[in-house]
Amino acid sequence: MNALPFISQTIEASAVIAGAIYGVLLARQNNMDIVGAFSLAFILSFGGGTLRDLLLDRHPLFWIKAPHYPVVVFGITIIISYFYKTPGKMTKLLNIPDAFGLGLFSISSTIVSLECGTSYFVASLLGVVAGTFGGVIGDIICNRVPSLFSKETTLYATCAFCGNWVYLLLKPYDTLTNIVAPLSIIFIVIFRFLALKNNWNWSLPEPQRE
Amino acid sequence: MNALPFISQTIEASAVIAGAIYGVLLARQNNMDIVGAFSLAFILSFGGGTLRDLLLDRHPLFWIKAPHYPVVVFGITIIISYFYKTPGKMTKLLNIPDAFGLGLFSISSTIVSLECGTSYFVASLLGVVAGTFGGVIGDIICNRVPSLFSKETTLYATCAFCGNWVYLLLKPYDTLTNIVAPLSIIFIVIFRFLALKNNWNWSLPEPQRE
Amino acid sequence: MNALPFISQTIEASAVIAGAIYGVLLARQNNMDIVGAFSLAFILSFGGGTLRDLLLDRHPLFWIKAPHYPVVVFGITIIISYFYKTPGKMTKLLNIPDAFGLGLFSISSTIVSLECGTSYFVASLLGVVAGTFGGVIGDIICNRVPSLFSKETTLYATCAFCGNWVYLLLKPYDTLTNIVAPLSIIFIVIFRFLALKNNWNWSLPEPQRE
Repeated sequence: MNALPFISQTIEASAVIAGAIYGVLLARQNNMDIVGAFSLAFILSFGGGTLRDLLLDRHPLFWIKAPHYPVVVFGITIIISYFYKTPGKMTKLLNIPDAFGLGLFSISSTIVSLECGTSYFVASLLGVVAGTFGGVIGDIICNRVPSLFSKETTLYATCAFCGNWVYLLLKPYDTLTNIVAPLSIIFIVIFRFLALKNNWNWSLPEPQRE
Repeated sequence: MNALPFISQTIEASAVIAGAIYGVLLARQNNMDIVGAFSLAFILSFGGGTLRDLLLDRHPLFWIKAPHYPVVVFGITIIISYFYKTPGKMTKLLNIPDAFGLGLFSISSTIVSLECGTSYFVASLLGVVAGTFGGVIGDIICNRVPSLFSKETTLYATCAFCGNWVYLLLKPYDTLTNIVAPLSIIFIVIFRFLALKNNWNWSLPEPQRE
Repeated sequence: MNALPFISQTIEASAVIAGAIYGVLLARQNNMDIVGAFSLAFILSFGGGTLRDLLLDRHPLFWIKAPHYPVVVFGITIIISYFYKTPGKMTKLLNIPDAFGLGLFSISSTIVSLECGTSYFVASLLGVVAGTFGGVIGDIICNRVPSLFSKETTLYATCAFCGNWVYLLLKPYDTLTNIVAPLSIIFIVIFRFLALKNNWNWSLPEPQRE
């Protein structure tokens, strides 16, 4: 049981690191300098959670309360920017910490939102926001339509949204153990990995076109 | 007199619905999937009011306090996205609830800002922000220069701004009845309809060019 | 000694004016109308400081507390938009109040962040945010990748970041006089002017490319 906080912190740290690496690579794609690389690394790591905290009026923000995180992101930016040349293979590996991070951030944000007194539906939405909106802001800065909203993207927000509802629906039956939260995180991770399998080609039903 | 809150709530609800429909159609124009459609519907309905509340430090946000609104926007997104094929005619009809929503949101935000202790000028600006900035954020996400700022756009922010000043200037003379607020809303609605009349071609004096 | 607050207010006012003029010229470049010009003037003057205050939960925002600033920005927008035709030469002159503003806003934000209990590193970052992010938001609205993040830009965020650390490192040795804050501002201003010298061509080491 004591292993839980340790596991959760390990997942959180690896998700922050994955976000930072994504940010630096996004900056590289867009020909930015080190200022841009750090800004994008910061926004991809902390953007979603910061937006959630602002909407819920939770202060101090988690990266102000845990000030080692910005330093870690700064270090990663320097290392990846100046010493990593062709990280093509790395991008694929990043899917692993990213999926775990999506699961952890979504469920923990859903819990936090409920504690702040939101309805179930709003909690499930803010859970998705915390897990995904760093990337949306990053895409906006890089001057492109957010890939999260594109029909070419494999299920991402959807995995988080469904996992949040797994948590919200099972929670009332879970009074003694604390098994529902980790279970929902695992649900999101597995759902995400299945969605990423190329040959399955999962996607949401397509909306009507013009 | 008892009819006022009912009318105001009807206008508010129809403005939220109009914003959501605009968001779904904007997502369709940009070839987005249902995640994008819901995000844009949400931002066009609640974005401006959320920005105002964050700037004024008003919590909980109105769509957290009235959690049926996000559910309504979600339902509209599903219905319009999957069951409405060619809503060309609808877009024009939407100008009606949109103009009423602009009036209602602008004046109620001006009142709210004054209650938070802002100056008259800041209150008139935040009134405009609440009525218009959802669309600005939506345009930024869709990767285009906000149409609100373009000289091709018929008067929109201007109608709200002038209506807010009608309210601010007449308010001191209105101690007994509560007639000035509805009067200013009607002023904005009429001003907006007149601006939309194609053959009049109203616009602000054009700034100097390069 | 009594001259300090007066000098600081003069710098602040001239930096707000410089930001407003930049905003109007940016709007002109993008063919916007007067609504866009005022919005951009407002965002370039107050955007960075507003973001800092939201992240630190400081309310009321400084332009709500000092409501003459929005009026000044409004006046500048009208004057520059309608009466200034070819401000090519002006743009270069603007570098002077801009550099002073960068110094003043960066150092005063660093001080404010420390007072709010952030770590040194977070304080140095928020110092940069207050001095620079108005321009980033302006560029995003005008649908281009923020010039602050581009490798073609001469050192800008870097000047502020280094100046903030000059302040943070010297502060512990400065218990009697209050000389370190003005000294750090002057450091940023000189660093910025040196970076702007065309023939030197200073820039940060370039990150690895794809």
